[in-house]
Amino acid sequence: MNDAFSFTLSATDGAARTGAISTPRGDIRTPAFMPVGTAGTVKAMLPENVRATGADIVLGNTYHLMLRPTAERVGALGGLHQFMNWPRPILTDSGGFQVMSLSKLRKLTEDGVSFQSHIDGSRHMLTPERSIEIQCLLGSDIQMQLDECPAIPITHDDARESMLLSARWAARSKRAFEEKSNAGQALFGIVQGANYEDLRRESLDRLMEIGFPGYSIGGLAVGEGREEMFRVLEFTTPHMQQNKPRYLMGVGKPADIVGAVARGVDMFDCVAPTRSGRHGQAWTKSGSINIKNAAFADDPEPLDAQSACPASRDYSKAYLHHLFKAGEYLGPMLLTWHNLQYYQDLMAGLRNAVAARKLGAFIDRFMAETGETIV
Amino acid sequence: MNDAFSFTLSATDGAARTGAISTPRGDIRTPAFMPVGTAGTVKAMLPENVRATGADIVLGNTYHLMLRPTAERVGALGGLHQFMNWPRPILTDSGGFQVMSLSKLRKLTEDGVSFQSHIDGSRHMLTPERSIEIQCLLGSDIQMQLDECPAIPITHDDARESMLLSARWAARSKRAFEEKSNAGQALFGIVQGANYEDLRRESLDRLMEIGFPGYSIGGLAVGEGREEMFRVLEFTTPHMQQNKPRYLMGVGKPADIVGAVARGVDMFDCVAPTRSGRHGQAWTKSGSINIKNAAFADDPEPLDAQSACPASRDYSKAYLHHLFKAGEYLGPMLLTWHNLQYYQDLMAGLRNAVAARKLGAFIDRFMAETGETIV
Repeated sequence: MNDAFSFTLSATDGAARTGAISTPRGDIRTPAFMPVGTAGTVKAMLPENVRATGADIVLGNTYHLMLRPTAERVGALGGLHQFMNWPRPILTDSGGFQVMSLSKLRKLTEDGVSFQSHIDGSRHMLTPERSIEIQCLLGSDIQMQLDECPAIPITHDDARESMLLSARWAARSKRAFEEKSNAGQALFGIVQGANYEDLRRESLDRLMEIGFPGYSIGGLAVGEGREEMFRVLEFTTPHMQQNKPRYLMGVGKPADIVGAVARGVDMFDCVAPTRSGRHGQAWTKSGSINIKNAAFADDPEPLDAQSACPASRDYSKAYLHHLFKAGEYLGPMLLTWHNLQYYQDLMAGLRNAVAARKLGAFIDRFMAETGETIV
Repeated sequence: MNDAFSFTLSATDGAARTGAISTPRGDIRTPAFMPVGTAGTVKAMLPENVRATGADIVLGNTYHLMLRPTAERVGALGGLHQFMNWPRPILTDSGGFQVMSLSKLRKLTEDGVSFQSHIDGSRHMLTPERSIEIQCLLGSDIQMQLDECPAIPITHDDARESMLLSARWAARSKRAFEEKSNAGQALFGIVQGANYEDLRRESLDRLMEIGFPGYSIGGLAVGEGREEMFRVLEFTTPHMQQNKPRYLMGVGKPADIVGAVARGVDMFDCVAPTRSGRHGQAWTKSGSINIKNAAFADDPEPLDAQSACPASRDYSKAYLHHLFKAGEYLGPMLLTWHNLQYYQDLMAGLRNAVAARKLGAFIDRFMAETGETIV
């Protein structure tokens, strides 16, 4: 560990890469999956058990935290790491995506976006500068520029206008970040442009001209479907710098991640393992199951007898089924833990496969075991 | 560890005692507090963390488990220890108390009690023999006879009639237990008789004539108040055998436990630490607090900086406050854990005080710190 933010590639296999991001708070092995800790907690998880799954970094949501408990309060309490008892790296989003999906009475202008809190109706303004100010109060290690993530389908004209706004906000974000941030923190620019190849290229060119230590790919996983997402990645990642980490925001299910790693993505986040776990869905080596299904009421087998994870290894499916039927806290706790372990095991498998230049065989086995198709 | 159930006293201080119950699944240091695992889980707790607080034994509820997932299913899955991943001793109640408090359309006869499930309305019959059968299917280490726990106030005549029924059920329970149980398991008789000294004596005499390896004190903590409970203990425990463990069922708050230990009780169970924890109440050395109170929104101090328990030590009150305000799972998880640690620390303090013959000083300090009165 040192005071700088850096990224080192250690191996590639086709477009896929493996390496590590170094930060003052610890290293992040890539490809990396970041569990989502929306409101300062990875839901239903003790932080020591999040770490035990192999997570090097978690994500916090600026929108939620700015409203409750507020960034000023978290800052006064020593920052988000201390607040949530997670001493390792934290990535925060800009808040923009969730303003658009969760808040009321939004109004977008050149300056930023004004909105009403979904919690108490209070009015707020999020600008590129305010988003950075919040992320710095939280003490986030990897911060995101404020961007606009337009709904799809969208015309080429509208997509370009939106992408240009995001690019202008990228420049403002960088200026604010240079004023407010601490050594070792990083700000990522976000590539937009919907599913238009020329716009993705133009977005990327504008961001690279501003210059960032890493680049996010936004505007995907918003309903376009897996094939279309992969198509956009295929004409986007080849133009991204080799020596900068690439973060595909909000992705995804295991098959999405496997396919995106094959297309050169390094970082992921998604609520799927945690949200699904709270609702009784468990990923297993042979695909996903719903533990509430009556078929599991008498099943003495654990989710994964070979796992080192207590949640996967030490409880029968019959017990997990019972916990969900009885509405017990422990059901969501154990299934969330299991799913996060599944995701981290998947990422470790991907890293090892790329390092060994055997990603093709890994993907073949993944498809055979899960029945998923990843072209 | 050996195959037998036994109880060894190691020290006394006035009426108070300390020692250990030995069972094939491990020792239980007394005075002992048993966390309540109603439906096969101590709510919102991982079993490894229940153990980490110092709990030697947990309690399971026959009523809940017989209805869901059913005793037959738990038995087929290897018993309750394996089901809930708790290899140490488990005590089960008889189911009778919760039939009377939770089920619908109850009908009490000499044979037993018939009732409708509060979950699905299905009809069931609980007899002394069926209760033992269920507890043996669960594999409980310490089992309870079926008894009647009458509502108060109650006349002397009605209390005696009820106590005599419980005594007849005690004899039937013992016969059933001798048929169905395994080596090292124990069945406790339950002293009833409301707040009548002669009836408590008669109940105890009848039970001792039948003969049990331990005795429970039932029919208390049902609304009579702390002073009255202590008064009943004072004329009951002196007549109980010194070399048998004494279990005060359903008790209690910390001050109840301290006062009952001073009156010669060895074992306790209560939902207070777990239920209160889920609702935002935390016991601390200086009394109990409600973490949802706005006063804690900016409080950077943990609940107990000196504790070895992560839940007590590693999170600020401001963070716990935030978790409850945001409705996050982690709030109940951490406060339950903290409260269970508080209870186990209290029991360890009581054991040490009795061993050192300094219980009086311990009680004086407890009263001074918490503001509670224990006469």
